[in-house]
Amino acid sequence: MAKRDEVPDIVIGRLPIYLRALARLAAGGWEITSSQKLGDLLGVSSPQIRKDFSHFGEFGKQGSGYRIAYLREQLTAILKVDREWEVALVGAGPLAEALIRENPFAGRGFRVVSVFDRRPERIGLRLGSLEILDAQRLPEVVRERGLKVAVVAVPADEAQEMVDTLVEAGVRAILSYAPITLSVPPGVRIQTVDPAALLQRMAYYL
Amino acid sequence: MAKRDEVPDIVIGRLPIYLRALARLAAGGWEITSSQKLGDLLGVSSPQIRKDFSHFGEFGKQGSGYRIAYLREQLTAILKVDREWEVALVGAGPLAEALIRENPFAGRGFRVVSVFDRRPERIGLRLGSLEILDAQRLPEVVRERGLKVAVVAVPADEAQEMVDTLVEAGVRAILSYAPITLSVPPGVRIQTVDPAALLQRMAYYL
Repeated sequence: MAKRDEVPDIVIGRLPIYLRALARLAAGGWEITSSQKLGDLLGVSSPQIRKDFSHFGEFGKQGSGYRIAYLREQLTAILKVDREWEVALVGAGPLAEALIRENPFAGRGFRVVSVFDRRPERIGLRLGSLEILDAQRLPEVVRERGLKVAVVAVPADEAQEMVDTLVEAGVRAILSYAPITLSVPPGVRIQTVDPAALLQRMAYYL
Repeated sequence: MAKRDEVPDIVIGRLPIYLRALARLAAGGWEITSSQKLGDLLGVSSPQIRKDFSHFGEFGKQGSGYRIAYLREQLTAILKVDREWEVALVGAGPLAEALIRENPFAGRGFRVVSVFDRRPERIGLRLGSLEILDAQRLPEVVRERGLKVAVVAVPADEAQEMVDTLVEAGVRAILSYAPITLSVPPGVRIQTVDPAALLQRMAYYL
């Protein structure tokens, strides 16, 4: 079994996709699957899937497929989402509201526990069951609760400052919706959701 | 200059990121940049950037940097976002509302021109300046307006059916917010926005 640092990040990036597919198979009543079936579902080759899994040891016996429950257990443990990470949500605009209301993180290892905004007219209002806190309280709350994960949904011009504040307070994984490349120090991870960039990538082929 | 099909998709995927950075440089008053400066901004090596650009010919003279206005023009033309693509938005829930209100597509080549929902209580309401249409009218509207691009913001269980309908009506590029891997026929592109998967990918390193 490979050490954590030795597994390529591109492989790590595929594990959540496998996990997502396994959850759907389980919800559909399936108990056993194969790399072939997973591959068909995901548009990935089955040798690729077996190779990805091989970084972490054996998940099934050759020829008899994978037990879905066991595989989900292993993958959630590898990804450290066999627990629930508390998340700070920074920015309480329409997108933050959608994230709270639709909650795409439910059942996937993350729960938003505090929401921040710097606009006086937003502070004190509620987003779902959470009170919107003054962004000035960000460092204090992140430290007190020991938060390691944050979602940033502020305008591009404010994003780097917010990210710096989060990192300074101890956050190590940031999902940003600001359409800008943000810099973080070594040891901190950031991913950007930029729907327009994804559309542009596809427009090339139109 | 390479033919369209010959440029690796991973390179195409980086062009929108370059474009995003160039737009910010331009907004900041810059007129000239270099692969070094772009690389620093984006955390990409400058040889990588020069190699990516080389697929499409020469964008600047060795040693004198790139004219930002010219480079933006070239990249927007390559990505075919030197025009504005009309977009169908399928699903009129909180996320769709956020997309309409925050409009991350503004100035980047896409404009939502019609919104659909299958829930009777949503049909006829407005989302921004758009009236929410019955999802049953999707094929008719997509065909009439010749829409090639769609954003899907419906629950996972409904997403494949909506995608099939869109493709059947002529859509060729789909951005999906449903946390599920969807299948599309050859010649159609799809990208999925799954924020929980991005968080899981980072949780591995926590």
